Amino acid sequence: MTDIDQLAIATIRLLSVDQVDAAQSGHPGAPLGLAPAAHAVFKKMKFNPKNTNWINRDRFILSNGHACALLYSMLCLYGYALNVDDLKQFRQVGSKTPGHPERLDVPGIEVTTGPLGQGISNAVGLALAQRQFAATYNKPDFPICDSFVYAFLGDGCLMEGVASEASSIAGHLQLGNLIAFWDDNKITIDGDTAVAFTEDVEARYRAYGWHTIHIKEGDNDLEGIANAIEEAKKVTDKPTLIRLTTIIGFGSLQQGTHSVHGAALKADDIKQLKEKNGFNPDEKFIIPPEVTADYAKHVAENQKIESDWNKLVVEYKKKYPTEGAELARRLEGKLPEGWKDALPSYTPKDKTQATRALSQTVLEKLYPVIPELIGGSADLTGSNLTRATEAVDFQPPSSKLGDYSGRYIRYGVREHGMGAIMNGIAAFGANYKNFGGTFLNFVSYAAGAVRLSALSHHPVVWVATHDSIGLGEDGPTHQPVETLAHFRALPNMSVWRPADGNEVSAAYIAALETDSHPSIIALSRQGCPHLEGSSIEKALKGGYTVHQVENPDIIIVSTGSEVNIAVEGAKQLANDGIKANVVSMADFFTFDNQPLSYQLSVLPDGVPIMSFEVMSTFGWSKYSHEHFGMNRFGMSGKGPEIYKALGFTPEGVADKAAKTVQFYKNKPVVSPLNKAF
Amino acid sequence: MTDIDQLAIATIRLLSVDQVDAAQSGHPGAPLGLAPAAHAVFKKMKFNPKNTNWINRDRFILSNGHACALLYSMLCLYGYALNVDDLKQFRQVGSKTPGHPERLDVPGIEVTTGPLGQGISNAVGLALAQRQFAATYNKPDFPICDSFVYAFLGDGCLMEGVASEASSIAGHLQLGNLIAFWDDNKITIDGDTAVAFTEDVEARYRAYGWHTIHIKEGDNDLEGIANAIEEAKKVTDKPTLIRLTTIIGFGSLQQGTHSVHGAALKADDIKQLKEKNGFNPDEKFIIPPEVTADYAKHVAENQKIESDWNKLVVEYKKKYPTEGAELARRLEGKLPEGWKDALPSYTPKDKTQATRALSQTVLEKLYPVIPELIGGSADLTGSNLTRATEAVDFQPPSSKLGDYSGRYIRYGVREHGMGAIMNGIAAFGANYKNFGGTFLNFVSYAAGAVRLSALSHHPVVWVATHDSIGLGEDGPTHQPVETLAHFRALPNMSVWRPADGNEVSAAYIAALETDSHPSIIALSRQGCPHLEGSSIEKALKGGYTVHQVENPDIIIVSTGSEVNIAVEGAKQLANDGIKANVVSMADFFTFDNQPLSYQLSVLPDGVPIMSFEVMSTFGWSKYSHEHFGMNRFGMSGKGPEIYKALGFTPEGVADKAAKTVQFYKNKPVVSPLNKAF
Repeated sequence: MTDIDQLAIATIRLLSVDQVDAAQSGHPGAPLGLAPAAHAVFKKMKFNPKNTNWINRDRFILSNGHACALLYSMLCLYGYALNVDDLKQFRQVGSKTPGHPERLDVPGIEVTTGPLGQGISNAVGLALAQRQFAATYNKPDFPICDSFVYAFLGDGCLMEGVASEASSIAGHLQLGNLIAFWDDNKITIDGDTAVAFTEDVEARYRAYGWHTIHIKEGDNDLEGIANAIEEAKKVTDKPTLIRLTTIIGFGSLQQGTHSVHGAALKADDIKQLKEKNGFNPDEKFIIPPEVTADYAKHVAENQKIESDWNKLVVEYKKKYPTEGAELARRLEGKLPEGWKDALPSYTPKDKTQATRALSQTVLEKLYPVIPELIGGSADLTGSNLTRATEAVDFQPPSSKLGDYSGRYIRYGVREHGMGAIMNGIAAFGANYKNFGGTFLNFVSYAAGAVRLSALSHHPVVWVATHDSIGLGEDGPTHQPVETLAHFRALPNMSVWRPADGNEVSAAYIAALETDSHPSIIALSRQGCPHLEGSSIEKALKGGYTVHQVENPDIIIVSTGSEVNIAVEGAKQLANDGIKANVVSMADFFTFDNQPLSYQLSVLPDGVPIMSFEVMSTFGWSKYSHEHFGMNRFGMSGKGPEIYKALGFTPEGVADKAAKTVQFYKNKPVVSPLNKAF
Repeated sequence: MTDIDQLAIATIRLLSVDQVDAAQSGHPGAPLGLAPAAHAVFKKMKFNPKNTNWINRDRFILSNGHACALLYSMLCLYGYALNVDDLKQFRQVGSKTPGHPERLDVPGIEVTTGPLGQGISNAVGLALAQRQFAATYNKPDFPICDSFVYAFLGDGCLMEGVASEASSIAGHLQLGNLIAFWDDNKITIDGDTAVAFTEDVEARYRAYGWHTIHIKEGDNDLEGIANAIEEAKKVTDKPTLIRLTTIIGFGSLQQGTHSVHGAALKADDIKQLKEKNGFNPDEKFIIPPEVTADYAKHVAENQKIESDWNKLVVEYKKKYPTEGAELARRLEGKLPEGWKDALPSYTPKDKTQATRALSQTVLEKLYPVIPELIGGSADLTGSNLTRATEAVDFQPPSSKLGDYSGRYIRYGVREHGMGAIMNGIAAFGANYKNFGGTFLNFVSYAAGAVRLSALSHHPVVWVATHDSIGLGEDGPTHQPVETLAHFRALPNMSVWRPADGNEVSAAYIAALETDSHPSIIALSRQGCPHLEGSSIEKALKGGYTVHQVENPDIIIVSTGSEVNIAVEGAKQLANDGIKANVVSMADFFTFDNQPLSYQLSVLPDGVPIMSFEVMSTFGWSKYSHEHFGMNRFGMSGKGPEIYKALGFTPEGVADKAAKTVQFYKNKPVVSPLNKAF
């Protein structure tokens, strides 16, 4: 270790400790232990703090996000858009340095981490995308994409099932471009890992197909870390887990104990730590100019690499104009011109189909048009209908089952891992539009990842088939009830439940055009007729009147496979002299983003509104006065028989609607959209 | 293999195939492959179909629940309350044989399975409970509890993270009483496991601390299976994974392919299968009397074992009257008399405390009173405050960190595994009351298990602390927004958010008294004053008026840490001449179960109602006309500063309430509880 290395590492340690001290809140232990590794890894990485979107940068993921003071220190020292004043605002309202790293706050933070297990799983997605991008655009002598993904993770990440899922598929996919450092500090919040975590982690990762390396003195052994990275890079067909044995809170009087994990160090402890490192104990947030200079030198080298890369791309565009143009378009974040022309529209004369089958048609048609469309299924390909006929599987070429340019991903039965990997693919950039299929009910398995999609603005798409009791025989363990309410309550989340072909096309338009929110597209197993009043354009408003009469006595607002039943119900009501509009509320989120005037034109004052959806009615009162649904679990049986058993028929709708009309007769009715504030 | 073995196995296979055939829906492949293993395992098990609650029975868990035709065949052949007519109703509305096994339908089905990974994780919970029960009550010469837990699981279960989490902790806990069979049939829905699942499963399980055995011809090798079970039983300090290589759809013309996984066999295939096994191809649901007799013989032997056990218990009660009485009480499912007397009640003079600290007091006081109270935390013990001072950790004695009679479980950072293990502990019986702690936001990681708690009526308790933006600095990755809406929308689920000490006591009373639904108790990190108008009795109604005035102009309905702010807001409103009631809606589920007359007394017609909760407002319109909350993610900062930044102060409440009063002035107001149907 050179003097400048020592000084840089001390600087990282003390900057991190000072952040936590200023906030009197946070996690000093991991930064103290991991500072040498961070220093060594960043020295091996290519990146440009002034162009954080450079597609061929190496990525760094802090999966143990609670150690974010470390990351903030690195970003500050390397000249990212994060300065010492920001560090002083650590964990304060409105700062750029929140309690866990958030990708929207500072360019250079690749993914939002903190919820354990997510970051390493995102890293798998980033590595997957890198491999796919490289296989798509690299040419002999044109290594357009040859970057690596580095991740730090702690014991907590390793215990989380999501990380297990992602690590298993990473091994299967032979993602040799992923290099992960396990901070083996033997301490978690409950104390010594001996209380709950005694498995042989290295053996487990080897069982997944990873290469493993052990560095026994991770607090000191810079050369070992550098060598390990070189070794890992040479193992091109396996991800590498580097077990880095460290002492949590290294240098603190409390080092090696869980008391340094999640609380600020005491004043005297900080004092001795600074003195021990040759820093003035009375100063805070010290950045020696030598460190700044050393890091700036590395940045300058990297900028040269980027500049060479830019020249390479210029040559590439000349030699491969088609790929070059596509590359340029993707890096601008634009979808291919006219892509929407590929989307089908329908009239009632078209044959009744399950919306999952209509989704299949969309994916089939978009596959050749959008080269950045990539996705798969959590082992339900034949049920989710997510695979285009001409698709190639994303697989290691040695498997003979596909190759790395493939765009169909066999996720295995790993919903949570899939969700987190999808976030990683989205975070890679290059305009990737990525989707994952499972049953709607099992999106819940991935709730932790879905939440981060919404928080981090990842525009990923869940193809969530078998979206209700209509799936039939599989029964209540597979039939969603609370699922739509759950995800509708999540901020920044689209939850489409299209009723027919036009609405399916609309859902995909919205889901693929956005770059700022995830979408779930809930799709039926059973057939849905194409509606008389639907169109792609209308559906793009989220909610619209699909069956319209003059001066309605009631409005029935419904979604998905229930809309056509509602329309039939409305026709029966007409026979009894009750006039009913039917509204298809295909996506709450999109409808909520329409002007209030539009919303009120659909759900006006003066008319009672009844919702109809074969799910929990929870949350529907946002739009409706009365709610026809099921606040109970479903049942196993043939789909149509279950609908009948629970009264979800045109007759049932008409009956409940008539009761609603009766109840509100001669009462003033205010639209639920009209609010006091 | 004897003739009778062969006949029994053929019977199981064909009964299973006939079920799927009758329904033209279901999964014949796994039952065909696993029939020999089922036959062999049941022959090794002790159980009594006529007394399915016998506490010392061996348990059988079908984690690959889609193979339920196999389980139904076994239960039918062994004389459980499931007959051939039930088998004929496979997957029909209202039958006892739904598409996945449900524990409430047939005694003998230990846990509801189907969602992959859950069953094996439940099995870990059952094994844990068995160990704890044995350590608590066994005495020299009195092996009151010495049962085993057997599980079948498929490739899908092994890919799920929840199973990884539970398997890791099972290895750590050295649960040698757990014997799992992995149906290594190399087929999942997407085809060959080569497409996504190529890890070395046995090596992974050895890394977890399991013993592994490989049976290469699982379709035939009865002796191998029997020997493996004996071997597994001898390894008392490790769970055992028996890799059972089988051919999916064994005997079918399509055997070994994924086309036998999830669809009925064709008629000619069934014909040849029956002929090959010497059965009349024109008959269905054949049960040879020899098989019935053979199984009845095993049952008779088992009934003798049970009868001997009953005698043992009689002797036990004589020799150990204290333990004997406790055992008897627990087996009757009764809590100790007077247990509620241990619960604290409070007045406003008592000091302000975080509700998580009040929860700690409850757990501390109940720990010595309720010996069946057992629980832990997913590595957040010091934050969840879930460990009673005098608690002993549940640990393998060799660890020197506790012993098997311990009642505090160190789950590690494994929320989903914890949730599924909790379900297993509840399913063991013996009146176990079990809880698990994590942050409210991370209950979502366990959504798959929580859903099954509700569906299966497991009365487990989540101690969910850090329940809002009030947790402060950890920021939006840790602050729940959608979480309460999610779980409130789940049928049969209590979601308590107590406002003060009395409400915390009430929440625990409700959560521990029920035997039919799970509970989440959401608890604050920050201090909450004890309310003037609260009492345990009132809180037990789920919602009640905590601050009452005459002829209110508005009702503010609130929960948890917001209730005291609402009361302060109401006092401010009084200064402006606006009279406000405040309702504490501590649990929607409990309130919904009150008579409508009571509910209307709290939320009557004629008064505008405004909700106040620092979460998504989704679903609140069930009770309120206007909703003050946050349909956005939170922020990192000091808790009180975040409340202030978002306007969640007495002034903010008063302002929004005044707007509400203004808006509804001179408008007729109907309580949201009054419904048309």
